Amino acid sequence: MASKTDTEVIIGGKVFTLSGYESEEYLQKVASYINNKIAEYNKIDGFKRQPVDTQNVLLQLNIADDYFKAKKQIEIMEEQISEKEKELYDIKHELIATQMKFENSEKNGKSLQTKLDESSKKIIQLEAQVKGTKK
Amino acid sequence: MASKTDTEVIIGGKVFTLSGYESEEYLQKVASYINNKIAEYNKIDGFKRQPVDTQNVLLQLNIADDYFKAKKQIEIMEEQISEKEKELYDIKHELIATQMKFENSEKNGKSLQTKLDESSKKIIQLEAQVKGTKK
Repeated sequence: MASKTDTEVIIGGKVFTLSGYESEEYLQKVASYINNKIAEYNKIDGFKRQPVDTQNVLLQLNIADDYFKAKKQIEIMEEQISEKEKELYDIKHELIATQMKFENSEKNGKSLQTKLDESSKKIIQLEAQVKGTKK
Repeated sequence: MASKTDTEVIIGGKVFTLSGYESEEYLQKVASYINNKIAEYNKIDGFKRQPVDTQNVLLQLNIADDYFKAKKQIEIMEEQISEKEKELYDIKHELIATQMKFENSEKNGKSLQTKLDESSKKIIQLEAQVKGTKK
């Protein structure tokens, strides 16, 4: 973990010194996100006429709304991940079962080939016998 | 979508009337989350002695931090999902390839079985011939 540092950020036109373990880059990104929210709100008619504490609470609610939407997305993605894990589990089992079926089929093929080779030898012997007795 | 409704929430001990499409349940959940943040901060020595705008900015930064952490988690989960999708794609191809190998092996087995049946018939015929000539 990085050491504790002081970072100056500008939020709503005012300078704040943040002391913590987060990187300056991260804190500037968060400050910039909040400033964009403030800029969005300032475009809305009547926002500036609201009492400052109402402005602040609206801003807090808006940021918290982004957070809850992200949390909802995390829940959906968690479901997606567990669905995919289940699908992977099932298909791995199907693959193993198919591999076993293939191996058994190959074993059966080898056994049939051996029997066929024996039969071929026997046919040659019998044909020789038939020819021999015909002489 | 639900119709626009007014919902009263209490944040930081003050009543705010929120007008929007979100459900009352959702807005109360978000308000409760912010109130928990405020309660956490009020436990920290010196927080209450900060100017109100500093208190508000710290609260906004803290909520935004939750949001950015959730966003980071979403990125990680997106990677996990695409890794699992790649794994599924690969294993599906392997399954299809194994199924084809199995089908070919079965076809080969059937062909060998047919040849073996023919050989067996031929052996019976030849054995009969050998027996017949011996008589």
